[in-house]
Amino acid sequence: MNNDTVAVASLLSKSNPVFCCYMFWSSLLILKMLLMSLLTARQRMKTKTVANPEDLRMMRTTEVRFHDQNVERVRRAHRNDLENILPFMLVSLAYVACGPHALTASLLIRIGAAARLLHTIVYAVIPLPQPIRAICFFINFGIVIFEAIYVMICVAKYI
Amino acid sequence: MNNDTVAVASLLSKSNPVFCCYMFWSSLLILKMLLMSLLTARQRMKTKTVANPEDLRMMRTTEVRFHDQNVERVRRAHRNDLENILPFMLVSLAYVACGPHALTASLLIRIGAAARLLHTIVYAVIPLPQPIRAICFFINFGIVIFEAIYVMICVAKYI
Amino acid sequence: MNNDTVAVASLLSKSNPVFCCYMFWSSLLILKMLLMSLLTARQRMKTKTVANPEDLRMMRTTEVRFHDQNVERVRRAHRNDLENILPFMLVSLAYVACGPHALTASLLIRIGAAARLLHTIVYAVIPLPQPIRAICFFINFGIVIFEAIYVMICVAKYI
Repeated sequence: MNNDTVAVASLLSKSNPVFCCYMFWSSLLILKMLLMSLLTARQRMKTKTVANPEDLRMMRTTEVRFHDQNVERVRRAHRNDLENILPFMLVSLAYVACGPHALTASLLIRIGAAARLLHTIVYAVIPLPQPIRAICFFINFGIVIFEAIYVMICVAKYI
Repeated sequence: MNNDTVAVASLLSKSNPVFCCYMFWSSLLILKMLLMSLLTARQRMKTKTVANPEDLRMMRTTEVRFHDQNVERVRRAHRNDLENILPFMLVSLAYVACGPHALTASLLIRIGAAARLLHTIVYAVIPLPQPIRAICFFINFGIVIFEAIYVMICVAKYI
Repeated sequence: MNNDTVAVASLLSKSNPVFCCYMFWSSLLILKMLLMSLLTARQRMKTKTVANPEDLRMMRTTEVRFHDQNVERVRRAHRNDLENILPFMLVSLAYVACGPHALTASLLIRIGAAARLLHTIVYAVIPLPQPIRAICFFINFGIVIFEAIYVMICVAKYI
């Protein structure tokens, strides 16, 4: 067994600093996504917007309500996370497994994750005027595209 | 090459019982998530609630309808799965890759997955009074938080 | 250290052609999912359907609107992707880690991914009469079920 095989085998392991970086920022993004559920719950309580009859008593209100603007804003931000953070995490995993340049990969993961953290703040916590949210969105968007194309070129012969 | 490196390299492989446990429960949760699509379809048929014009003939109805309470309940449960099961699976993968204590990790994966299975039953199959659904939700929620923080501490120096 | 351990350790690495095939098609599906955001934006611009007050100026319109049929169609297709592509990618990862028959696994990944690409075209780009969309849906659906059951049998003793 040569050293090369060992190196390849351990790209998705704690011995690879890039994978460690990926795990750190992924975990932080996951925590951020969980926070959205709590933000939604807070807005539901504030505005007494309850979607299920069985939740009425817990929220101290008497009828189900939908389409509250404050609740829907957080829910749109949460859905945007599902649409962008989960793909970012899955494609970054493949990207790390391709063994990219360590510094580039770590920077892309950090910037992509930071952009999503900022996106949540300007969307659901303190709504700020555009194009701040659009910029955060497209930074992460561009990184996902770059990583996906990098992976596809890297493994193109196994199509 | 020493034994330590081998052990690290194979944490995400069939030779690691914790990863096997993770794969078993992840696959079961995926099957459960697919079931939500069938539950939605069943409710759509029962209540003739069709969202696309091209589906009208297949469902033997004449116009599109939205906001049926039975359909929306299953869809909310399904969305809740996307918001919680997918993060649970992704963070557990990183957690397993960190090489946690085997018994603890297996128990967390089993309890977290079982909580989500129960969550679906009391939300979308047989709606039960609160706080049963809230308890199921927060068991899984707490486990995801624990695992994410565990991973972040474990790889903190590669931030 | 024997050869068997090495082989197991490297299933989730570039040295495994099945994993390379998985990475290629996963990345393509991720790109396809990102495209849905752009399709939604295009429909929002065309129909001037803006969900956030802060986006009004950017879209050159004066009030928020919801429930536009063209926007909602793309959003339903996008949500269907979240419900099916992400589980497909996660279960396929576990499936590849179980070391399945190489040709079978590669074919399942290719067919499952192709079915989802076609699903998007007939749902959100050029809406076609049923059952074309249903067939695309159930091809991928069936493959996810097969892979999940394969994984569960493969690691059943670590339940």
